[in-house]
Amino acid sequence: MKSDSYTSYFRKDIDEMEGYAPGEQLNIPELIKLNTNENPFPPCPGVFQALANVDPERLRLYPNPTSDPVRDEIAKMFGLTRDNVIACNGSDDTLSITVRCFSSATLPIACLRPSYTLYPTLAALHGAPVKYIDLADDFGMPDDVLDQLKGTNLFLIARPNAPTGNSFPRELMENICANYRGMVLIDEAYADFAADNCADFVNRFPNVIVSRTFSKSRSLAGLRFGFALAHPRTIAGMMKMKDSYNVSYLTQTLAIAALRDTEYFTDCVDKIRMAREMLLAGLLDLGFEVVPSETNFLFAAPPDGDGERCFRELRARNILVRYFPYPRTKRYVRISIGTSNQVVKLWAVLAELYGDNRK
Amino acid sequence: MKSDSYTSYFRKDIDEMEGYAPGEQLNIPELIKLNTNENPFPPCPGVFQALANVDPERLRLYPNPTSDPVRDEIAKMFGLTRDNVIACNGSDDTLSITVRCFSSATLPIACLRPSYTLYPTLAALHGAPVKYIDLADDFGMPDDVLDQLKGTNLFLIARPNAPTGNSFPRELMENICANYRGMVLIDEAYADFAADNCADFVNRFPNVIVSRTFSKSRSLAGLRFGFALAHPRTIAGMMKMKDSYNVSYLTQTLAIAALRDTEYFTDCVDKIRMAREMLLAGLLDLGFEVVPSETNFLFAAPPDGDGERCFRELRARNILVRYFPYPRTKRYVRISIGTSNQVVKLWAVLAELYGDNRK
Repeated sequence: MKSDSYTSYFRKDIDEMEGYAPGEQLNIPELIKLNTNENPFPPCPGVFQALANVDPERLRLYPNPTSDPVRDEIAKMFGLTRDNVIACNGSDDTLSITVRCFSSATLPIACLRPSYTLYPTLAALHGAPVKYIDLADDFGMPDDVLDQLKGTNLFLIARPNAPTGNSFPRELMENICANYRGMVLIDEAYADFAADNCADFVNRFPNVIVSRTFSKSRSLAGLRFGFALAHPRTIAGMMKMKDSYNVSYLTQTLAIAALRDTEYFTDCVDKIRMAREMLLAGLLDLGFEVVPSETNFLFAAPPDGDGERCFRELRARNILVRYFPYPRTKRYVRISIGTSNQVVKLWAVLAELYGDNRK
Repeated sequence: MKSDSYTSYFRKDIDEMEGYAPGEQLNIPELIKLNTNENPFPPCPGVFQALANVDPERLRLYPNPTSDPVRDEIAKMFGLTRDNVIACNGSDDTLSITVRCFSSATLPIACLRPSYTLYPTLAALHGAPVKYIDLADDFGMPDDVLDQLKGTNLFLIARPNAPTGNSFPRELMENICANYRGMVLIDEAYADFAADNCADFVNRFPNVIVSRTFSKSRSLAGLRFGFALAHPRTIAGMMKMKDSYNVSYLTQTLAIAALRDTEYFTDCVDKIRMAREMLLAGLLDLGFEVVPSETNFLFAAPPDGDGERCFRELRARNILVRYFPYPRTKRYVRISIGTSNQVVKLWAVLAELYGDNRK
């Protein structure tokens, strides 16, 4: 019996690091859950139909290893070919594959700060150094970004950015992609809520990967589906890295159904944008400072500049938002856009808490 | 427009390597598909029921990030605790996580040869050196395995082995786990078809990971579900490495249903074992040399010792088996055990091809 002693054979850096902590997934029925940017609306009717039509006998067989039927559907949608598309087990999978393909102990990764904290965690898990590029005071891109990128091999950039919600000008993105000597992954998890996107870069810049997910705009966070668009040679290399059967048969089947149901999708996105503008007006009225958002969330600093207190007070009232305890983010909370009803309830609570600041 | 030129920013070793080639997934209705060790029987009735009961609205939310309800079910089944279990997106995910946790450019991986060719591919993808340990003539473990393991940090061992189908004595496994100074992953993908397994090692050896999959004995290759059992500290470290939401809501839900349906499962496994013994007798009768199998497949050398010809002749007759063109395996084909009907059809074709050798 040796179980009392434990000798670690883990890589030393893994033993020493903290893991990534995703937003809480609590199971409290009355909770208004606005912490992980899920979509408040159900998936599209086509997904309901496709699920009802699944033949469970088919599950005994392996799925299509490269998700070709889904890739064809995505290619059609973007005017690309199957060779421009990789299908993944959520965009977590896309990001992990990318980091493992394009970084190493001698090929550093560049990340913006503040941005999605999963990026530096993935770098650490893979043993790759991280070069942080601090955003300007308004969370815009610093002017010397190309200088700062020098010596790195992979730039992970969320556009629109998370948790701040703002976007970066397309011309700036074009300039970076044209002049950076490395791979740029543009994480467009929130692009469906934005004014524009960079999907067309795929045909213009061989060093660009555009990543998308079904977890936000498609109301399918539970399904685990993401995809990336890139040059065929980039896709071919990433295909080597992915698990052989990384996307389940059920996920492939329902992803196709979701892609074909465009009307419902557009309608949901419109409703979320409207609720976002409604909440924005309410927050400004209460004296919040709010970053201009092109996403399904608002990054907002309460009048007292105490993000943590705001998080705690809301939590005590069964409203869950996200708080990031870092120097640049601690004045803010990140609020996912829920239904109009949820937005109204949230606003009522905030008015109670911060009503004295009302203009 | 730069798309005609492509500068690779991939890690050099990724650019230079071949990817892993999984068995063909053809979509030909009349094909008898015996090449990827899928289960010929449908998933259990509980899975049908659970699928019919899924609430598609739930898909808008992220799944339980650590698959706790499934882990609890698995822990109960093995008399372990939740902390002893990690849930994965198929055992491909388990293997990839393990390789990334316990190997590096300076922490080599040991693999048996012949064994599952995904192991050295994963090592190459992660930039870890591989130490091959050649099996004896009868595909048994060499006597000096512990000596050969020296200097390696992770031993990936399929028990029963694939593609050979034989197992290794438990006492030998105990001796390896007790004396190896590194992590042992025992890949029990086929253990449900075997006479014994090593699941109990988890409470006895802190340096052991036991990996299981639902793709073979549970008839759920399309679902993508695998899990591993290990010491709580091992599981905690592997949890850092896995994607935050690596198992979809649908997969978690159906995996629980599959675990609860034990009677159907036992019945399927019994039927496959019987079909295996039936095919074994038929192959021996035709003069095939067959490795003693504890799996749902037979590794069999035709009388003329030409595995490739056997593969081709069967393929021409709409029967798909697997052929591995390596020195130690080229005399053989690997035949997944199908239904009794499929086994009878296969045998009839083989009798036609090799009947002259009949004893």
